[in-house]
Amino acid sequence: MPQTATINRQTLLASRPVGAPVPDNFKLVETPVPHPGEGQMLLRNLWMSLDPYMRGRMSDAKSYADPVAVGDVMPCGAVSRVMESNLDGFAAGDLVMCYTAGWQDYSLSNGSMVFKLDPNMAEPSQALGVLGMPGFTGYMGLLDIGQPKAGETVVVAAATGPVGSVVGQVAKLKGCRVIGIAGGPDKCAYAVDELGFDACLDHKLDSLANDLANACPDGIDVYFENVGGKVFDAVMPLLNPHSRVPICGLIAQYNATELPPGPDRLPQLMRLMLSQRIRMQAFIIFDNYGPHYPEFLQTMTPWVAEGKVKVREDRVEGLENAPQAFIGMLEGQNFGKMVVKIAD
Amino acid sequence: MPQTATINRQTLLASRPVGAPVPDNFKLVETPVPHPGEGQMLLRNLWMSLDPYMRGRMSDAKSYADPVAVGDVMPCGAVSRVMESNLDGFAAGDLVMCYTAGWQDYSLSNGSMVFKLDPNMAEPSQALGVLGMPGFTGYMGLLDIGQPKAGETVVVAAATGPVGSVVGQVAKLKGCRVIGIAGGPDKCAYAVDELGFDACLDHKLDSLANDLANACPDGIDVYFENVGGKVFDAVMPLLNPHSRVPICGLIAQYNATELPPGPDRLPQLMRLMLSQRIRMQAFIIFDNYGPHYPEFLQTMTPWVAEGKVKVREDRVEGLENAPQAFIGMLEGQNFGKMVVKIAD
Repeated sequence: MPQTATINRQTLLASRPVGAPVPDNFKLVETPVPHPGEGQMLLRNLWMSLDPYMRGRMSDAKSYADPVAVGDVMPCGAVSRVMESNLDGFAAGDLVMCYTAGWQDYSLSNGSMVFKLDPNMAEPSQALGVLGMPGFTGYMGLLDIGQPKAGETVVVAAATGPVGSVVGQVAKLKGCRVIGIAGGPDKCAYAVDELGFDACLDHKLDSLANDLANACPDGIDVYFENVGGKVFDAVMPLLNPHSRVPICGLIAQYNATELPPGPDRLPQLMRLMLSQRIRMQAFIIFDNYGPHYPEFLQTMTPWVAEGKVKVREDRVEGLENAPQAFIGMLEGQNFGKMVVKIAD
Repeated sequence: MPQTATINRQTLLASRPVGAPVPDNFKLVETPVPHPGEGQMLLRNLWMSLDPYMRGRMSDAKSYADPVAVGDVMPCGAVSRVMESNLDGFAAGDLVMCYTAGWQDYSLSNGSMVFKLDPNMAEPSQALGVLGMPGFTGYMGLLDIGQPKAGETVVVAAATGPVGSVVGQVAKLKGCRVIGIAGGPDKCAYAVDELGFDACLDHKLDSLANDLANACPDGIDVYFENVGGKVFDAVMPLLNPHSRVPICGLIAQYNATELPPGPDRLPQLMRLMLSQRIRMQAFIIFDNYGPHYPEFLQTMTPWVAEGKVKVREDRVEGLENAPQAFIGMLEGQNFGKMVVKIAD
C-alpha cells in the first residue's frame, strides 16, 4: 500500500489488546489527504516516535490521558514538514515537532503542542528522543525529583533507552555513581563502554537482585523508575534513607492483565517508605514541567553536540512497520530510541 | 511500688511483642536514682508522652531508628524538671522537654534533644503534643509535603489525635475542605463540632469507603497518612491528579505479624501513582525538619493561645499505668493526645 500525494495512510487502533498487543490490534487504512481549514496547517510526517506510554492509551483503564477510541488513529509525536499553513507563525517548508501527529502520513494541526525546529538540524529525529519528550523526562525527573548529589548512587533501568540513557549520563555529569539495568550483554556493554555508566546489569539473569546488591554497596539514593516489576523488587531492599524515586513509566507492568498473586506487598511498600523516609513521585513530563522545556533544550542541545550526552536510535523504515516495531519495543527488542521513518 | 526520692522506677522492654503488645512485654523495675556526671544533668520526669512510633522501636525490624534492646528502658519524650545540672545553660529548677527521657521517673541527659520550656507555661504537657513532636509533624508534613491550596480537599485519619487534629485544623486555616476519619461517633462529633472539620467519618463502619467517596465529591488532593490499612484502601481510588500523600505513620499496620493475602497490590499502587502523578513522601519530623522547629513554635503557640487550634489530651496518672495506656492507644482507645502524668 504505497503512500502517494493524495493518499493518507493511517494506522488505527482496531481493537484493545488483552495483555501484549498483537498485529491485529492495529489496522492500516487509506484516506484522502485532508485539507487544512482556517487556523490549521497540513503536516507531512517524516519521523514518528514510538514510546511505551502508547500502550496505556490503547487501554480503557483510567489514566492520565484519555484512551484512544477503537477506530481512531494511534497517537504519537512526529517530526513533520509543514505542507500548507493557514496559521500565523507557520509557513510551508517549516520543520516542526508535533506531539499530536498520530501514526499517519499527514496530519492537520491547529498549532497546539507544535514546536518549530531548526531547519538545519543535523538529526531531526533527535527531537523525538534526547531533545524531546524522553530526554526531557529523564532530565527533569532526575534533577527535580531525584535531586542527585555528587557521590550518590543512581540506578536506572532501560538504561540504553532514550529516558534511561539520559538519566544515567546526566547523573554522571553531576558526579554520581550510576548503575544501569538493561536486557542482555550487548546493551549492558554499551551502557558502560559508550555511555560511561559505572556498571550495567542484565535483568534477564536470575541473579539480578544479587547483582544489584553487589553493585550498590552503599545502597541506592536515587532510583529512576521507568519499568516497575522485578527491577523495582530488586531495588526496594537497597533504598537508602531519604532516597528519591521519580516514576515516569512502568513498562514491565503495562501488558499485565491481572495483579500478581499474593501476599499483598502494598503495606510493605508503605512501611519501607516510612522506615527509609522515601520520596516517590510520579510525573508526566509536559503536564508537570512544560514551562521548563526551553531551559532543558538550552542545556541538552550543547551536551549532545559536544558528545557529553550520547545518542542511539533504533530506526525502522515505513509506517506499515510501526505496529511490529511497537510490539517489539514493549518486549525490549529495540536498542536505543525507537523511531519510524515514514518520509524523507 | 511507690516512687521515692532515691528510687527510680523504670519501665523496661521485657520481650518483643508478636502482634499487639501485651502487659508482659513490659517490666517495671526499681533502680537507684542516678547521679549526673560531668556534662550531665538529672531530670525529674513530670509528663511522659505515649506515641505510636514506640511500637516500631519495640520490634527488631529494620526501621529509621534502632530498636530498643530487650531489657532497656522504653523510650519516650517527657516534660521534666532539672534537679541537678553539671551542664552549661541548664540549672536546677528549669522546665525542659527531653526527647530521650524514657519511661522512668528520672533520667540523665547530656543536653542533646533537650529544649527549655517557659517555666510559666500554662499546660507543660502540650510540649509533648500540639507544641511538640506530634503537632510539628502534622504542621510540617501538611504544609511542606502536602502543599494544601485553598479549596482543595484534605483527608486525615486519627482525626482527634495530636497529629490528625493539627493537620485538619491547620488545613482549615488554609481554606481547605477537611474530611477527618476517626473511631466512633464521639470522636467524629468532636472533630466536626469542636475542631471545625467539614465532616468526619467513622472507620469502624463497614461503609467507610462509600462514606469517604460521598464526602469527597471532588476527590482528594492531600491525604495525610498516619494510619495505613483500610483507610488508605478507601483513599486510593479518590486520589486526584497531582495529589500529595505525606506519610508520618502507619499505626494500623504496626501490630501486623505478616503481610495480608493477595493479590499483590504493590504494582497497582505504582500504577495509580503514575496515572495520577501522585507524590508520596514519608518523613520523620526531627530528621527531616529539625531546623524548622522554632518557626513552627512561633506560629503554633499563638494559634493555640488564641483557640485557633484546639487541644485535647487523654491523661493517665502514674508511670505504672503507661503500658496499659500504650496498648489501648494502639487500639484507638485514647481520645486526644496520650500523656502520662508521673509527678507534679
